[in-house]
Amino acid sequence: MKKLYEDIGFAKIDHHRQIRKGFPEVIYCEGKTPEQIAHIAYSISRKGHDVLATRADRKAYLAVKKILNKAKYHETARIITVKKKWTVVSGEWLVSIVTAGTADLPVAEEAAVTAEFLGIKVERIYDVGVAGIHRLIKNLPKINKSRVVIVVAGMEGALPSVLGGLIDKPIIAVPTSVGYGSSFKGLAALLTMMNSCAPGVAVVNIDNGFGAAVMAYSIVRLF
Amino acid sequence: MKKLYEDIGFAKIDHHRQIRKGFPEVIYCEGKTPEQIAHIAYSISRKGHDVLATRADRKAYLAVKKILNKAKYHETARIITVKKKWTVVSGEWLVSIVTAGTADLPVAEEAAVTAEFLGIKVERIYDVGVAGIHRLIKNLPKINKSRVVIVVAGMEGALPSVLGGLIDKPIIAVPTSVGYGSSFKGLAALLTMMNSCAPGVAVVNIDNGFGAAVMAYSIVRLF
Amino acid sequence: MKKLYEDIGFAKIDHHRQIRKGFPEVIYCEGKTPEQIAHIAYSISRKGHDVLATRADRKAYLAVKKILNKAKYHETARIITVKKKWTVVSGEWLVSIVTAGTADLPVAEEAAVTAEFLGIKVERIYDVGVAGIHRLIKNLPKINKSRVVIVVAGMEGALPSVLGGLIDKPIIAVPTSVGYGSSFKGLAALLTMMNSCAPGVAVVNIDNGFGAAVMAYSIVRLF
Amino acid sequence: MKKLYEDIGFAKIDHHRQIRKGFPEVIYCEGKTPEQIAHIAYSISRKGHDVLATRADRKAYLAVKKILNKAKYHETARIITVKKKWTVVSGEWLVSIVTAGTADLPVAEEAAVTAEFLGIKVERIYDVGVAGIHRLIKNLPKINKSRVVIVVAGMEGALPSVLGGLIDKPIIAVPTSVGYGSSFKGLAALLTMMNSCAPGVAVVNIDNGFGAAVMAYSIVRLF
Amino acid sequence: MKKLYEDIGFAKIDHHRQIRKGFPEVIYCEGKTPEQIAHIAYSISRKGHDVLATRADRKAYLAVKKILNKAKYHETARIITVKKKWTVVSGEWLVSIVTAGTADLPVAEEAAVTAEFLGIKVERIYDVGVAGIHRLIKNLPKINKSRVVIVVAGMEGALPSVLGGLIDKPIIAVPTSVGYGSSFKGLAALLTMMNSCAPGVAVVNIDNGFGAAVMAYSIVRLF
Amino acid sequence: MKKLYEDIGFAKIDHHRQIRKGFPEVIYCEGKTPEQIAHIAYSISRKGHDVLATRADRKAYLAVKKILNKAKYHETARIITVKKKWTVVSGEWLVSIVTAGTADLPVAEEAAVTAEFLGIKVERIYDVGVAGIHRLIKNLPKINKSRVVIVVAGMEGALPSVLGGLIDKPIIAVPTSVGYGSSFKGLAALLTMMNSCAPGVAVVNIDNGFGAAVMAYSIVRLF
Amino acid sequence: MKKLYEDIGFAKIDHHRQIRKGFPEVIYCEGKTPEQIAHIAYSISRKGHDVLATRADRKAYLAVKKILNKAKYHETARIITVKKKWTVVSGEWLVSIVTAGTADLPVAEEAAVTAEFLGIKVERIYDVGVAGIHRLIKNLPKINKSRVVIVVAGMEGALPSVLGGLIDKPIIAVPTSVGYGSSFKGLAALLTMMNSCAPGVAVVNIDNGFGAAVMAYSIVRLF
Amino acid sequence: MKKLYEDIGFAKIDHHRQIRKGFPEVIYCEGKTPEQIAHIAYSISRKGHDVLATRADRKAYLAVKKILNKAKYHETARIITVKKKWTVVSGEWLVSIVTAGTADLPVAEEAAVTAEFLGIKVERIYDVGVAGIHRLIKNLPKINKSRVVIVVAGMEGALPSVLGGLIDKPIIAVPTSVGYGSSFKGLAALLTMMNSCAPGVAVVNIDNGFGAAVMAYSIVRLF
Repeated sequence: MKKLYEDIGFAKIDHHRQIRKGFPEVIYCEGKTPEQIAHIAYSISRKGHDVLATRADRKAYLAVKKILNKAKYHETARIITVKKKWTVVSGEWLVSIVTAGTADLPVAEEAAVTAEFLGIKVERIYDVGVAGIHRLIKNLPKINKSRVVIVVAGMEGALPSVLGGLIDKPIIAVPTSVGYGSSFKGLAALLTMMNSCAPGVAVVNIDNGFGAAVMAYSIVRLF
Repeated sequence: MKKLYEDIGFAKIDHHRQIRKGFPEVIYCEGKTPEQIAHIAYSISRKGHDVLATRADRKAYLAVKKILNKAKYHETARIITVKKKWTVVSGEWLVSIVTAGTADLPVAEEAAVTAEFLGIKVERIYDVGVAGIHRLIKNLPKINKSRVVIVVAGMEGALPSVLGGLIDKPIIAVPTSVGYGSSFKGLAALLTMMNSCAPGVAVVNIDNGFGAAVMAYSIVRLF
Repeated sequence: MKKLYEDIGFAKIDHHRQIRKGFPEVIYCEGKTPEQIAHIAYSISRKGHDVLATRADRKAYLAVKKILNKAKYHETARIITVKKKWTVVSGEWLVSIVTAGTADLPVAEEAAVTAEFLGIKVERIYDVGVAGIHRLIKNLPKINKSRVVIVVAGMEGALPSVLGGLIDKPIIAVPTSVGYGSSFKGLAALLTMMNSCAPGVAVVNIDNGFGAAVMAYSIVRLF
Repeated sequence: MKKLYEDIGFAKIDHHRQIRKGFPEVIYCEGKTPEQIAHIAYSISRKGHDVLATRADRKAYLAVKKILNKAKYHETARIITVKKKWTVVSGEWLVSIVTAGTADLPVAEEAAVTAEFLGIKVERIYDVGVAGIHRLIKNLPKINKSRVVIVVAGMEGALPSVLGGLIDKPIIAVPTSVGYGSSFKGLAALLTMMNSCAPGVAVVNIDNGFGAAVMAYSIVRLF
Repeated sequence: MKKLYEDIGFAKIDHHRQIRKGFPEVIYCEGKTPEQIAHIAYSISRKGHDVLATRADRKAYLAVKKILNKAKYHETARIITVKKKWTVVSGEWLVSIVTAGTADLPVAEEAAVTAEFLGIKVERIYDVGVAGIHRLIKNLPKINKSRVVIVVAGMEGALPSVLGGLIDKPIIAVPTSVGYGSSFKGLAALLTMMNSCAPGVAVVNIDNGFGAAVMAYSIVRLF
Repeated sequence: MKKLYEDIGFAKIDHHRQIRKGFPEVIYCEGKTPEQIAHIAYSISRKGHDVLATRADRKAYLAVKKILNKAKYHETARIITVKKKWTVVSGEWLVSIVTAGTADLPVAEEAAVTAEFLGIKVERIYDVGVAGIHRLIKNLPKINKSRVVIVVAGMEGALPSVLGGLIDKPIIAVPTSVGYGSSFKGLAALLTMMNSCAPGVAVVNIDNGFGAAVMAYSIVRLF
Repeated sequence: MKKLYEDIGFAKIDHHRQIRKGFPEVIYCEGKTPEQIAHIAYSISRKGHDVLATRADRKAYLAVKKILNKAKYHETARIITVKKKWTVVSGEWLVSIVTAGTADLPVAEEAAVTAEFLGIKVERIYDVGVAGIHRLIKNLPKINKSRVVIVVAGMEGALPSVLGGLIDKPIIAVPTSVGYGSSFKGLAALLTMMNSCAPGVAVVNIDNGFGAAVMAYSIVRLF
Repeated sequence: MKKLYEDIGFAKIDHHRQIRKGFPEVIYCEGKTPEQIAHIAYSISRKGHDVLATRADRKAYLAVKKILNKAKYHETARIITVKKKWTVVSGEWLVSIVTAGTADLPVAEEAAVTAEFLGIKVERIYDVGVAGIHRLIKNLPKINKSRVVIVVAGMEGALPSVLGGLIDKPIIAVPTSVGYGSSFKGLAALLTMMNSCAPGVAVVNIDNGFGAAVMAYSIVRLF
């Protein structure tokens, strides 16, 4: 029987995840040292899996790069990837990533790079927040071509509600910590999205671009 | 010198408010007995002022009616009025009251009746929430004719943000306690409105239709 | 051109929603009188659409029944339906509804009845919470046959995290207000689900069985 | 037809806002790099519009200054402006900006500079908090000459309530994050202002001097 | 040695408190049955102490009255007293109780009756909230004659801050749950009072008129 | 192989729990109908297990009683038991249950009855809160004889901290919802206990007497 | 007539406060530049008043020292004083300052230095928290000699409750931000103190040693 | 009589704690200077007790090391120990420390080092979170050998609930501040653990590894 996980002392790498979830264990870098990250990345790579590490800073990247020289750093997304071959499934696996503002870019890119890592074709539609709704409406035809829509918004986070009234595709809403004062680091946007009067919207954690991409992946891979 | 207030034991009626604020003291009924409400109403009326009592139930109305037989009960608005003559200043004092849903009606009517009591001409535009944005856009010309716009919304409370991006009139946003779960009795809508990315929006307390109307009045009476 | 909505005074019925969203306007009953509910139901039915009214009590049902005698009351789900013909798309549109406990039933049934109203075939798997995880594991094969999984849980709301580690289907998590003390009416479960360490989970509002079903519908109708 | 917005990759500049809202798109600098800010500023300026950038640090200023040499940095207000001609509409457009304490100055200046940028004549009345109410009363005649009053206060945020009882002008209340302990970064002041017993008060987000100025502008431009 | 307490099964009566604190154990009625209340009252009375029971409804009163026929019910204050002789120490023990509004009366009366029970002479100054500050200023001379000032206010709770800037007496602030929406049952008033910019103010629990009176008592009995 | 659970439609009874946890499945009655409760109780009883049902009202009791005539209702504890033989393990399994006040009794009794159901000998020490610390100190010798101490306290919940500094036994702290105002239904007591400066204290949910008893049971059964 | 305040542009110095409140305006340094602090200090000193500046860092001290060479920096208390003559009123004005732990020292010293500045004789009793209650009881006689007791405590903040049950002096409770996790920067201690079951306790803001001292001063100066 | 504590000015060392609690006073380093820490450590050591200092940085360690050259720094655990002889009681005092993820290590090690300091034999089982439940199940036999289980988890904190359903040992749950967004620095995990549907779980403060170890110690020392 294939071993379910590998014990490397401070961590137990879940090599079995590829089978259960359709993609390998992902490294969440916060709270881990560059050395730990490189160690885990090496262990995953050695098994023949591609590596995805989120919330990574440049130091973590350099530590991984030293061991796995195909490592690539996606700066805005704060992601390290080690991937043998980037291919995307066009058409059927098309996912739009829509942002309300420019400050939402890092979260949107975390979603976009994760999605592309998983083979999803991504359509980026940035800075179409509700304060200038004509920008959103202009982009509706493009959004409607995709199978799933990820909507990234901070401040009052109203974009998923509005978009949810206009299209019939599943919307994965990502509140961001963009804002100040009573935005309470994304809580305002989170509550807005939770209470959306437009159905067909489900929400992931504040700033969780990665989670939104995996949710989208769990849908498109049904095809 | 004119006496600034009248002491009736449990309360001090501020008869001077008409001069300072442009309208007489208003009775907020919650936490007061029908007898206390009737007593205060009588005291205000005796000075020649019109009477407005908010958050009033039918019992309070009957207590007032017994003493002041011109008293009128506005059921949906939960307001008692005793007014010599209802006149509205059309045109210059036109205020729109816009709601997201049908359940926001009691708050909207509290605003509407208060506004009419103060002589404002009101345009009611109800049930145009963002989940069906064509209903809102269809009504934009009507909204644009008014000088001030009161927007009443519960649940995610996104309507002021969207409207704030479309019109250049001052918007007074009223979050309502309509909703459930993580709406937390209006907190979600309140935070949404506070964090509106569209400028030109200011917010009053949850369910405070009365306050929105007085804010609107403080603007239109500048003319 | 087809009229986008119908104005019946206190409400504007969005008959166009069928086209935009794939299903007609739904009546959310809280905060509406039985008369208003019956009026809206009639207006929707007259256009040839089926009627779905959520959070309905028996009084609302009787008011609708008087006008539309095909009306049916789903007691546990607190739903009124008026539907010409109940048909479900088996196989491709199969959705599992999984609950942690018995007290989560009303929310689960709101999801189930809504889903069936929308033509979805539903597999009910109730009372398989994490305190007796063998019950969950026993039911995994059944869950894995469905395309989308709705997970309903109160108290600590850990079920979506655990299930998310075991299956690769999209999970729509519904926190419920079941619990007491520091469950804070579902807030604890909501936060748990938001912070799920297992990806492929997205969350709707506390007790929002309806919203979960529509999200599932937005996914299965892609097929 | 005039193009509604310009797409510069990471942002979509809303050049149409001048028409809809009466002033051009404003740059909110937080979460944007100096290069992005300069790029957007250039794009706005090239269309012949004046530039206003809020929450800007000195680095952002230097980046803008390099491209647009008329750029000016308002240090206390943390604002960059690029404006062809500063003119103010005296009298009719007079707005008072009142602060409770000295520590509220940055927010007050954000409001003041924004207002002046929009052509409003500003009367600054600083440090008249309720702990020494004679300072406030002394300044009442000056405040009463203005059309709209912006009140900026942190800590317990009681100033708008007190002022709201004394004057009949619309008050825009701005809670600030000044304070410590249970001020919870402005939450205490925000709640105080929301619950003001004096009507004629509406509230914007914590530290949102900019929003207060635009709300005032939306009122004075009615004249 | 005198026994420190008496064990009556479900409770341990602290008869020693008279010595340690200067007044006997007080009965807080919420969560106790009328029978338990009567039992404790009897036990205290039998030792020769006067009885004070707060948060008492009429049922509790009747149960006590049956056993101790000198029992008296103070309805607005929701207090039961059994007291041999009511005497107050005038002058030196004078305490003012000031309220912002009429709805604050029950809390103010809880403070007043408790104070009088403890021998304090009370000056009631009700309904002088900040929305009509002339009412407060008119009463300043009367307030200044007292040694300690209890200020009772709900909604935004600004009264202690304003009064704290005008007088040099110790102020005990009592937030009340009067208000709605974002008053969050007194939390807004509590935070306001906590963050008072005027020093010389200390705060007791929401609606805790009893606690305020005992705090005042602990001060005046120093004389 | 023994079946792990029994499926009765709306519930899956975990008959295997006796083996895994040392006691049978317990019925949490809130959110269940009397009929459901009786049904589950019957199913557990039929397997030869004793029945414990918490948060039960009298209606639930009568429904169970009709089917299982040995059913007993513990009113203060709100517990239904059906138990063949009540035996307690004295000495080694001795657990003290200490309360701060009289209003904490229902929670304390839920713990006490549950403990006795599980065979634990219980020492009840009620009404020894920190406001009269001599009552607590007087009872220390008795408390010290037990192996585990359950401390039940509402309001400020300081009792576990004080007791934790005086004894070396494991303390299970139970915050209760007793209190008002800023006790926020037990949140204040919960936070106090969480932040106890005395080590050797662990906390269960607000009002969770049952959970405290099971935690104590998991300790004493180690012997 | 004596001028009520002095306008120095960014601030209005309240020279009249000495008369109203018994002590001069105090400088709260957070949010002010060293230059502003020095400017205000100079303005106060020039009028013949002593200077007290709280929350001051060393930079502010050096700026003040340059202008007023009698300035003294109290490091632990983070206070600058400029005082002609330090005298304390012994006996009648004796105030105890009691802390739970060593980490509460900065707040306790802010209270102590402020008190001494106001002429109060201070008894420091530090590190007598409830986890070792014998330390507290040992110091009771000393505490009982003082007229007012200031109690400073972080973490669970139980000390005022315990002390409040043991002495009959007025207690001013100061929650501190000492702690971690669910202490939420002092919120836990604040709520504990608010809900104290021992009467005779009133609370000031988190870390507000200054406010506690002024409250104590407002009491002792009654003598 | 043995002196109960030693007064070293800024602190009162509780040398009596060894007798009351079974272990000496522990130094909590946050908010103390390296000099204060070294001073207290020296005072404890001089009495012949071992020294344990938690939340210590390297500076504190160096200050202690200078005075007590047997001092040892446990880096991941952030603990300083000065211990004459490390011995552990195997078998009977066996405690498992289980973590959900790698980022929970510092808290787990604080628990582990504290436990070992107190003579407990520790079994470390790290990185077995619910997202890969086979890792947990694989380690069940090892966990079941221990007497008490400490479970350390951040993010959604579901591990104690799941483990609580599988084993019959007392579980001490430690929420950690690992996570982001709506984890609110450990609040989400804390609430999850509080609301655990599996009984036999009690919770300590966020990141309080030390407290968990002492709670475990209070249990195992019963043997």
